[in-house]
Parts: sequence; C-alpha cells; structure tokens
Amino acid sequence: MSTMVGRQTAPIAPVAPSTGALRPLGLDEVRITGGFWGERQHVNGTASIPHCDHWETRVGWVGNFQRALDGTLEHRTGREFADSDVYKMIEAMAWEVGRTGDPALEARIAELTALIAQVQEPDGYLNTHFGRPGQPPRYSDLAWGHELYCVGHLIQAAVARLRTGHDDELVAVARRAADHVCAEFGPDGRDGVCGHPEIEVALVELARATGERRYLDQARLFVERRGRGTLPDIEFGREYYQDDVPVREATVLRGHAVRALYLAAGALDVAVETGDDELFAAVVRQYERTLARRTYVTGGMGSHHQDEAFGEDFELPPDRAYSETCAGVASVMVAWRLALATGDLAWGDVVERTLYNVVATSPAADGRAFFYTNPLHKRVAGEAADPDEVSARALSRLRAPWFEVSCCPTNVARTFATLGAYVATVSDDGLQVHQYAPCTIDTALGDGRRIGVEVATGYPVEGDVVVRVTTAPEGEAEIALRVPAWAVGAATLDGTRVDGPVARVRRTFAAGDEVRLTLPVGPRVVAADDRVDAVRGTVAVERGPVVLCVESTDLPEGLQVDEVRIDPTAPVEPAGPGAVARGARVAVVERPWPYDDASPAPADEPLDLVLTPYHDWANRGPSTMRVWLPTT
Amino acid sequence: MSTMVGRQTAPIAPVAPSTGALRPLGLDEVRITGGFWGERQHVNGTASIPHCDHWETRVGWVGNFQRALDGTLEHRTGREFADSDVYKMIEAMAWEVGRTGDPALEARIAELTALIAQVQEPDGYLNTHFGRPGQPPRYSDLAWGHELYCVGHLIQAAVARLRTGHDDELVAVARRAADHVCAEFGPDGRDGVCGHPEIEVALVELARATGERRYLDQARLFVERRGRGTLPDIEFGREYYQDDVPVREATVLRGHAVRALYLAAGALDVAVETGDDELFAAVVRQYERTLARRTYVTGGMGSHHQDEAFGEDFELPPDRAYSETCAGVASVMVAWRLALATGDLAWGDVVERTLYNVVATSPAADGRAFFYTNPLHKRVAGEAADPDEVSARALSRLRAPWFEVSCCPTNVARTFATLGAYVATVSDDGLQVHQYAPCTIDTALGDGRRIGVEVATGYPVEGDVVVRVTTAPEGEAEIALRVPAWAVGAATLDGTRVDGPVARVRRTFAAGDEVRLTLPVGPRVVAADDRVDAVRGTVAVERGPVVLCVESTDLPEGLQVDEVRIDPTAPVEPAGPGAVARGARVAVVERPWPYDDASPAPADEPLDLVLTPYHDWANRGPSTMRVWLPTT
Repeated sequence: MSTMVGRQTAPIAPVAPSTGALRPLGLDEVRITGGFWGERQHVNGTASIPHCDHWETRVGWVGNFQRALDGTLEHRTGREFADSDVYKMIEAMAWEVGRTGDPALEARIAELTALIAQVQEPDGYLNTHFGRPGQPPRYSDLAWGHELYCVGHLIQAAVARLRTGHDDELVAVARRAADHVCAEFGPDGRDGVCGHPEIEVALVELARATGERRYLDQARLFVERRGRGTLPDIEFGREYYQDDVPVREATVLRGHAVRALYLAAGALDVAVETGDDELFAAVVRQYERTLARRTYVTGGMGSHHQDEAFGEDFELPPDRAYSETCAGVASVMVAWRLALATGDLAWGDVVERTLYNVVATSPAADGRAFFYTNPLHKRVAGEAADPDEVSARALSRLRAPWFEVSCCPTNVARTFATLGAYVATVSDDGLQVHQYAPCTIDTALGDGRRIGVEVATGYPVEGDVVVRVTTAPEGEAEIALRVPAWAVGAATLDGTRVDGPVARVRRTFAAGDEVRLTLPVGPRVVAADDRVDAVRGTVAVERGPVVLCVESTDLPEGLQVDEVRIDPTAPVEPAGPGAVARGARVAVVERPWPYDDASPAPADEPLDLVLTPYHDWANRGPSTMRVWLPTT
Repeated sequence: MSTMVGRQTAPIAPVAPSTGALRPLGLDEVRITGGFWGERQHVNGTASIPHCDHWETRVGWVGNFQRALDGTLEHRTGREFADSDVYKMIEAMAWEVGRTGDPALEARIAELTALIAQVQEPDGYLNTHFGRPGQPPRYSDLAWGHELYCVGHLIQAAVARLRTGHDDELVAVARRAADHVCAEFGPDGRDGVCGHPEIEVALVELARATGERRYLDQARLFVERRGRGTLPDIEFGREYYQDDVPVREATVLRGHAVRALYLAAGALDVAVETGDDELFAAVVRQYERTLARRTYVTGGMGSHHQDEAFGEDFELPPDRAYSETCAGVASVMVAWRLALATGDLAWGDVVERTLYNVVATSPAADGRAFFYTNPLHKRVAGEAADPDEVSARALSRLRAPWFEVSCCPTNVARTFATLGAYVATVSDDGLQVHQYAPCTIDTALGDGRRIGVEVATGYPVEGDVVVRVTTAPEGEAEIALRVPAWAVGAATLDGTRVDGPVARVRRTFAAGDEVRLTLPVGPRVVAADDRVDAVRGTVAVERGPVVLCVESTDLPEGLQVDEVRIDPTAPVEPAGPGAVARGARVAVVERPWPYDDASPAPADEPLDLVLTPYHDWANRGPSTMRVWLPTT
C-alpha cells in the first residue's frame, strides 16, 4: 500500500481524494453568484444556519455539553445522537465561514469549540450520553448508541475547519477522538462497528486532511468488519445496518437508506485511497443497481417508513416514499465520489437530480422549516407545523422548524454551504463543469496552468449555458460540459449537436472566448419501468433536471389531485419554472366495495393541468400533490 | 335506558346481544361437519390449540403467573401484554371444549385457571407486569401498558366458560377483575381509557352473560371517553389509538387497525344494548367508508407497517399491505355484529371474504405456523421460519410457529373454534344461512318452533348449496340464504334466478324438503376503483369468495411473478380450487435508470397462467406471489 501524504493544496471542499480522475475545486475556486443555487446558498447562510443554531440551543443539544461540565446530565435532552447534530451544524458554519469569512460565525464556532473541548475526556472519548456514572457504559450499545457516528460528524466538522484554514482546537479535539477510536477499535481492539455508518467516511477524510495513514487504516478496518454479524439480529434483520453481508460481497444497497449510503461513500473513499479496485467495483455495482431499481424519479431513496429503509427492487410507492432528506444528501456524496474517481461526468446527473428534487425540496422558501421525508404523492393535505414547536411527527406534517430527530436541517445546511464544490473539477489539462449555475471559476489545471471562466445561465428554467473564459491557460486545454442523459442527442454546443454525454471543446482559448451549451429544458413526459408496480398507468413530467408535480393549489376549487388525468400524447408547454399539460378531470364513482368487474369509464372533462416544480410543493400552504399522473 | 336481564338461553357463541334483528346460534346448534371450514376446525382443535399451549408455556407466558406466585417476576418474559395471549388461548380452549367436550382440554383450563386465580390481588387487579415492587405502578402507562386490554381478554375467556356451561373460578376471577375496573375507572374514578381498545367489547359481553348492567355502563363510559385526548400525543398522532375524535363523531376507521376494529365492535355492542341509534349509525358510517376505501380485496385492513395502521383512503399497496391477521379477526367481529343487529345478510359477504382470505391465510396447512401480516404481493421469496424458534421478524419470514408479539395464533384459534357461530341465525319465523359449509343446524325459531336442517355443499369450489329439512317447524316458516354480491343476478334457487342479495323460501316445510341454491363460483376477473393507485392497470381473479393469486411455484422454472401478465379479455377456466388464465410472459428490459420516455413495448410470449387460492400461498415452500396482475 502506498504511503499517504497530506496534500498541501487540498481544496476548500468536503471531499479531497489523494488520487482520482478529477480534482475537486474548493469554495474559493468556484463561487456561485446567483440563480437557483445562489439563492439557496444565500437563504442557507442568512436564515437556515442561524435557525439551526437557535434550535440546537433552544432544545438543549448545545446545552448538553454545558451540562456535562456542570455534572447535570440527568437533564440531558435529545436522543442518543444529539451531539452529532451540533457537530453537523458546526460543519455547516465552518464551510460558510470558508465561503463568506463571516466573523460572527467564526466567533460562534470558537465558542462552541471551547465548550465541546472541555467535555472531552483525557483519553479522547467524547459523548454526552455514555460513560458517566448513571449513564450506560461506553460502547455498551454499538447497535443503537451512535457513539462512533457522533465522532464521525465531529471529525467532518474538524475537516471543514482544516480545509478552510483553521487548524484549531476543534481539529485537536477531533484528532484526539479519532486516536481514541483507533486505539479502542483497532486491529487488537473491540471487534465492533457502529450501528450507524458515518465514521468510515469521516476517518478517510481526516486521513486525507492530516496525512495520517492510521485513520485510513481504521476506516478500512470498519468497512471490512461490517457485514460479519457483530451487531445483534433485530426485527428488521441485520441488513438494517448493513451487517448482513460484507461490503465487497453485497449486490445492492439495502436496509436503512442513510446508513447504507454513508457506508457506500466511506467504502468508496477507502477503495480510492487504498487502490482497492475490487471494493470500488462492488460499491459501484450496488449503487448502479440501486439507481436502476430502488430510486424514485426524484433521486430519492428509501421506501419503507418503519425502518427508514430501501424496499425490494421496484418497490417504490409514491405515497409511501420515505425518501429521507438525509438519504438525498448521502446519495449526492456517493455520486460525487464516483465522478471524482472515474471522471465520468454522468454521475453529475445523479447529483443534479437529487439536489434539485430531494435536497432542495426539504427547506421551505424562507429556510426555516424542513421536510424530513419527501413523498411523491400526498392524498390528504398535511397540517401546517407550528413554527414555534418541535415536531414529533415528521410524517404527517408539512415542513417543520425542528424535529425530535433533527438530522435533516443541519445536513441540508452543510450541503448548501458547499454547493460550489460540486460545480466543477479539473484534470491535467481540462476543466469539467458538472453543474450549471451562474458562477465564477478560478483555478489551476492539474498541470499547473491557471484557468478562469465565468458561467452565465438561467438554468434550469432556461437551457443556455454560456461559459466565458476570463483567464485563458497557455496552450491547448479542454473545457468539458456535462450533457444530462435527458439531453443527449438534443443538446447543442455552439449550435452543433452534441452526440454523447459530454460536450467538449479542446483548443487554445483566449480570454473572452465563449462556449455555449444549449440544453432542451422544455417539459418531458417520462414513464416508469413497468416493474415499478405502484406507478403503472401513469406518467411524470420533468423540466430539465426538475421533476414537476400537480398541486391542489393550482387546481380549480374543490378538485382533488386524485381526480385529474393527463393526456401524455398532447404537447406539454413550459410555463415559468413549471408547465401546462392537457389533462382532464374525471367523474368519481362512489361504490360500497371498490373491487368489481364493472369499473365504469368515467366521463372526462378537459382541463389545463398546471404543473409546478416538486421542490416547491407545499410552499403555498397545505395542499395535496402528486408527481405521477394517471393518463387519460 | 332499559334494565338488562341476562338471557337464560344465551347461545354457545361469542356474541349474544339481548336485542337485534337476528338471534345467533350456538356451537351446539350448528355443527360444521366437513368441507373447507370443517377441516380447519379439525386442524385447529388437534394441532393449533395444543401448539399455542406448547408455545405459551415454552416462552414463559404461562410461567409468568407462576413467577408472580413465586416472587420471581424479575424473570418475567414477553411483552407487557403477554398475559392476554394466555387468556386468548384459554378462550379458544373453552370454545373448543364447548364444541367437542374434550376432557383433557377441560382439565388444562382448570389447571390454568387455578394458577391465574392465585395471582389475582384481593381488590381484583390482575396483571403480571404492573404494580409489584420493582414494577411500574398500576395504570401508570395507560397508553402502552395494555392492562385493561388484558382484562378484556380475561373476560372474553370467562364469557366462553359461562356460555359453554362452566360458571367456574375463571368466571369469578373475571368478574372480580371487571368489578375492580368499574371501581377504578367508573364515573368518579380515573378519567382514562386503555391505549388498546378491547375491554369495551368484553365488558358488554360480560354484561350480557351475567345480566350485570354495571359492566355495560362501564363499557359505555370507555367508549364515550375515547377520542377526548386523555392519552398522550405521539409520533403517529392520537389517531393511533382512536383518541383523536370521539367515536360518534368519527367518519372512518383510522390509526392502528386492530385497535380501531375492536373499538368499533365494542361501540356497536354498547349501541345495541343501550338503544343508541346515533352511536350505531356512526360506527356503520365509519365501517362502510372503511370498506369502500381502506380495505384490500382480501378483506384485509391496514396498509401501514410502522404503526400497523390504516392508510389514507385508497392507499392500499399490495406489496406493503400489513393486513394483520388480528385485524381480519376483528373485522369479522364488526361485520357479524352488524348482521345480527340489522338483519342484513350482506354483512355476511364481509365475514366470508375476510375469513377465506385473511383469517384462513394465516395458519399453515398443519396449523402449526402463522402469518402475522398478509401482503398481497411478495416480490422476493421469504425465508422459511425455523419451526423451533420464536420469530422476531413477522415481516420477512414465511409463516412462523410463534412471534415475540404473538397475538395472531390465539386469535385464529379462538375464531376457528367458534366458526359454527357465524353460519346461521334465526328470526321469529325464519332461519338465515349466512355461510355455506357442510353442517347440521338444530335450533328453535324465535317463536319457539323447532327447526332442523342439514346443509350439503362443496362450496366454495362448487356452487351448489343444498339445504335439506330434517326437522320441519309446524306451519309456515322462512329459510333465507345469503347471495353474495358477486352472485347477485346469477344465482339460482331451485333453478330460478334470484334477483336480490337474499334467496328466500317461505312456506310450510316437511322433513326431507330440499332447497338448492346455486352460486356461480367460476373465476371472475375484478378490477379496482381507479383511485387505488397501487393496482392501476391490473386485475385480480376471484373464485366465489376466494381471492386467487399467481405463485412462483406454479410458473415455468426461472420465471418470476413480476414477469407475467394476464389477458383480462380471455376466459378464465376453473381448475381445482383455482383457475387457469390466458397470460403472457414479458421480456424484461434492464435499464440503468428506470424512468424515461422510451419504455419499449416488451414482446409478450403466451403462457397459461395458473392461479391458486391466496390463502394457500407459501404452503409449498418459499415463493413469490401476486394477487393483482398487470394486464397484457
């Protein structure tokens, strides 16, 4: 195995592999300047991050650390993993400081860090729920205790500090915690894994950020240990925490979706850093089958509520979609790692679909309420959540300000703060643009030549993406632009049709040169594989990467979303960010028993069907909604 | 309100209202002599009831009572409601003794009763999980403690003893327990209800069996108290335990299905005994909407796994059907009460559909393993359960011998032991036959005249039901035979078409007279209301009251149930208890992303599609299965 060397030039980005086809760019190299994602970054920084801090404090999860100092943890609040949500918030703050330099946020990080650091025990152990008198002993409940999961999020926050130039106390705390984990769970230590994967992906990144090989070795050990039944058998089976089959033998993602996806991301990181092609191929195989058979049209993953888990292949009910926001975040993590490692820009399709239709669906327009789950069909309008109350019911309410299990808001916050990192990469002599947003990119190619571009676009509502060179590298270079799968064969580059999934221009550029990619972002009617039983006889409409839906808010008074049909053969016209389709309202026939052989053909009445972006649903008050529309 | 008087002539049956359109008959009046239900009663008595006794003993739930005596309840086993499963088993045994007079079973009841009686506290309280030093205090957890639920099942066992002629120690224990409940939860007592309805239906029956009005009053109080938010708000909402809306204001059954249905049965009983037409109408309205919008084609109820609950209207995914066996039992309880109260034989359709397709689906052919849930689509063959192991996984395994939560086996056992009670009723001058099985009926009409008939039939496989008079009442009388909804317009009575839902013969009968009802039990293709999104574009096949399915066991080697289609326009031929349809196997096209606009029409290859009764599925080993079949 290669000796690891920390890269001096690691980007200000959450993922920085030491090797791979493409080099990610940092938040200082890519600046999103407006548009869909610029607006969300702004709301995230100005509203969501302060909102998270307000709630983490109010519900006492920050206070748990103070209670640990005061010896009053009998009043500890939150679930066993509450510490992790504080760490995820600090991670979001750290990236936001990296992006904006906000001194107030920097001061808040220092304040939180000082508090947390005092709670760490001399041997590096750090958790407010375990190990003290009256508390369960350390590592007494690996299945549900989330101790290593919490350390993982602490580490990710520390990596964010390191990458944004702050080798501070939080980094020292995380290193001590990681060293403790290595000592406790090393080759001669406890033969265990955490019930919730997360530490794997964190330890690899810490190894990358610090150059310390031992963290990578420990991550590798955790990945290899999983699937060997060290965790207890439970009602959902050991597949719930992926402890049923070794990672390199599994054929599909299964069990708890966030757990499965975090593990996949960590396993990819281990594979990349150790050159383990077999492990890498195993995860690719699992993820590809998951995309082909266990993923919603939104990119959402997970169809079982009970265990927040993947269903069987093609078991994808829109009404009972769980599609947890955090699973969307985790799927973006996996797809992005695959793009970096393989250089295949098509993984950007998954990143894009999931960002637009899962992650962006979670926060309300004002950034102060969140969906935890993201169903694709809502038969009965949910209740509006009280903006001043923690929601115990993630399932039946609209976006809520906070949850008893509140993993999603901080996960959205840390993702939105780092959106710039998913936009572009460089190779030796090329710049690749993966996501389209108004932005400036200033970086160096792998061979050291500087390159700068400015991207102007109204995407995804408009299809033109103009890349203007601001700093031209000397000599020949390549600018490569991802062509989404739905645009292949219809996209043009400077007016010429692009045949494949990448539009490439290789030449000697001059400052001011422009490259114009035009993507067909008009409405498209899509159907599902016939094996997706739950949506047979229906279609969905997409506009560019955005999945549209019908929302009761846009229907004539009194009409329900379950009483309309769409004519899939008629043209669907764009309308703002949505579309208008030819549809029909159907006459509903009430019967005492809904199953018989005389289902009468209802009389259709024509109707213009307004479709709006799914990620905007329920932003205009409680509504019913459906993505998959029965056809006339 | 009327004063209640215990009927001296109460039938040997679980439900004996003091008033109503029809009088139920007892197990001594109706004897099932063979056929589908005769076989099941035999297996139930010879295998299932001893099996339950074996497991209740082995897992220590019987032993909990001994531990209470020994002061060793720190070793108590099972969940907080484990006592109830012992009581349900005793109830099954009691009915079986009433049916067969088995002295060994009678001795076992006496043995269990003696044990239980010693555990009862002086004030009548009886529960092995609460109230002792080191245990939670009595009634400290009404939401989840199941204390009143356990008393309810104790009472139902005692009622079975009373009705089968044994006014024994168990009856005394149950009366003391009921008196304790009345004292504790009476008008001036605790303003609470049990998180799991059950005591309501039990108390009314105890009032009926003993003539003690106070039990009815207490049941009424519990029914009226529910829906007023005395139980805590929880993640699933108070609708989980029907504490969201008062019973007489609710519009549909909702929340945990077994809870909702037990409550509905109890509320009907209260309404019948107190002449409360408003309450009665409220429950009818709720149940009718539940049948029209929240019931599977099998009669199964409950589509949410997480909270074992009803979904929204038309949210009926076949693959994620929960359709708990106990909910089937409870739905039979409700429908039967409606038949008795209203005299409308059509409620027998619901009883029949649910018995054949939910309750009969649960037990294995040998009566020693049970389904807890009854999905209508199984994509991946379940694992065979270890016949020697308690199953913690009711969901992913095939029928299992016992469960950690093992409510279903004893519920099936007590229902099968009393099947005779659902067959027929009498009115003043008529005999009504609700269910068709080979049987003898010997009883008195309401006006006192004796009547006897013998029913010969091969139903449900064959459609002829011959009712031969063995004892003719003097003068004119009526024999009424239920015509299932699917047979209306096609059934014949002695060769003449019957137009309505009841075939009636009113005349003076002589011994030896025969009435022949012929029902069209050939295969029928049924479609679902278009609002049942999950089965759009599919049909199901029924034979008489029996829902059929396609099971992988009957498909050509290697073919999966999700790769076949049915031609709904071609005739479906009967074949044994099942059918053969014209179908097709479809070519499966694998795609990396299952949603696009180019869904190719797969090339169909004709195939004879064998359909078997759904209740038999997985009796030939692990298999995949589906009830709803996509059409060609």
